[in-house]
Amino acid sequence: MFSKITILAPGLLGASVAQAVRQHQLAQHISIWARRPAVRKAIAKQSWCDAVHATAESAVAGADFVVIAAPVDLIAPLAKAIGPHLKPGAIVTDVGSVKSTVCHDSATALPSSAFFVGAHPMAGSEKTGWAHARPDLFSNRTCFVTPLPGTPPKTVTKVISFWHKLGMSVVNVRPEQHDRIVAHISHLPQALASALCSSLAKKDTHWRDFAGGGLRDTTRIAGSDPALWRVIFEQNRTEVLQALASFSAELKSFERALKRKDYRTVEAILQRGQSYRSKFKI
Amino acid sequence: MFSKITILAPGLLGASVAQAVRQHQLAQHISIWARRPAVRKAIAKQSWCDAVHATAESAVAGADFVVIAAPVDLIAPLAKAIGPHLKPGAIVTDVGSVKSTVCHDSATALPSSAFFVGAHPMAGSEKTGWAHARPDLFSNRTCFVTPLPGTPPKTVTKVISFWHKLGMSVVNVRPEQHDRIVAHISHLPQALASALCSSLAKKDTHWRDFAGGGLRDTTRIAGSDPALWRVIFEQNRTEVLQALASFSAELKSFERALKRKDYRTVEAILQRGQSYRSKFKI
Repeated sequence: MFSKITILAPGLLGASVAQAVRQHQLAQHISIWARRPAVRKAIAKQSWCDAVHATAESAVAGADFVVIAAPVDLIAPLAKAIGPHLKPGAIVTDVGSVKSTVCHDSATALPSSAFFVGAHPMAGSEKTGWAHARPDLFSNRTCFVTPLPGTPPKTVTKVISFWHKLGMSVVNVRPEQHDRIVAHISHLPQALASALCSSLAKKDTHWRDFAGGGLRDTTRIAGSDPALWRVIFEQNRTEVLQALASFSAELKSFERALKRKDYRTVEAILQRGQSYRSKFKI
Repeated sequence: MFSKITILAPGLLGASVAQAVRQHQLAQHISIWARRPAVRKAIAKQSWCDAVHATAESAVAGADFVVIAAPVDLIAPLAKAIGPHLKPGAIVTDVGSVKSTVCHDSATALPSSAFFVGAHPMAGSEKTGWAHARPDLFSNRTCFVTPLPGTPPKTVTKVISFWHKLGMSVVNVRPEQHDRIVAHISHLPQALASALCSSLAKKDTHWRDFAGGGLRDTTRIAGSDPALWRVIFEQNRTEVLQALASFSAELKSFERALKRKDYRTVEAILQRGQSYRSKFKI
């Protein structure tokens, strides 16, 4: 599909992309740049890496396709750094969880001969780091592709096709629409899991040892990296605040119903939740 | 361990108890009563059932040990019904998720020659019904055993030993203490998962199809039976309201910090949540 793919800042997602690209033979050559020398040394030995580079600028030379797998606040700065070193027609995508600011800033940072098309594969984990990478991380998951208006349709098609070939179901939406959706289905659940654990941390912490499967599953993502998520909440602040407001209103209805012993309303909320949950695909 | 164990109203938990009792050879004979004739017919053919009965009263005749596996609002009424038919010295336990009312009412309902010692194996699932039962459902999980003051220590020991032999880690607490703990680690997560799904049901329901692992795990228990949970919330109303208040205060702190762009506080809450979550046993 491509002669050379470059992956910048491979953590769980970036290294999984590299492994999947190799497995599906989507590039003849995979170049990688990692910030830390120790990571570069370890990655150089992997079968899914043909060359490691000490700088992002040298890693992207001659690449048709670049995947920026850095945390959301570092994507546009990296796009700016590599811009002058991209070959004409190069396509740059990313894996960031927030798209509006990232897409506008990154597109602006690139020269007019290169293209930025944002992407968000919904395939994270509370685990981080390239050592947890898996080539099948993306299978049967959703990938948002969020082109800005004016991106050549052929370029958009190439990016959609790339993520599709990694086994993903691709959804093409505007960056702003993406941010509204994930505020509700990803950032809100993260806030709830974290706030639940954070609130339980103030009680008797031995209770934790009694946890059943319910608490374990409900709070799994509270184990995620706080620094990464701080930036996501920062960049998607407005939409997350709206999602939090909707949720809080619903929880307040539940609480009020329980307080006034209106168990019919309590059950109606449980029922609406069950009905929604029962239609999940997987 | 016992000559005859009787299990009343086997769903997921009751049938799993029967399977585990057979597997660990804890009783020579297992008798079962189920309300529905179709269930009785199906269960009669199972290797973990020696006899099915059309009434709870006849099922408990001659039993040393009775497990009431009915929903929480039906436990005390069943205890009352079987009371006159229990042999002297019989021990009755249950699997209800709320213990305070259940234990007091059930103990009162039994004759003085029999004993009620409440139990709550933390091993449920959003799936219900005996067909989902597994003999290893209880392995490595916590079981609360909640004797009332004045229960003979030998009787308490027998009940603790029973659940322990099913592979559980047994915690002996007062019914009121149990209800406070599970309000936080079980009922609160259920309310949050249900309210989250119920609030998302009011948005674009296609978003559900984009869900990643985070939303899926966070909301799994929202698939639980609304009628069962309504009764749990009803019986543990006071404690759940307190747990909801603690959680809401924490979520409000998060929301306020995000609103005023105090990202240090946002990260501190995420950090406290991560630190709490990282110490989960499994």
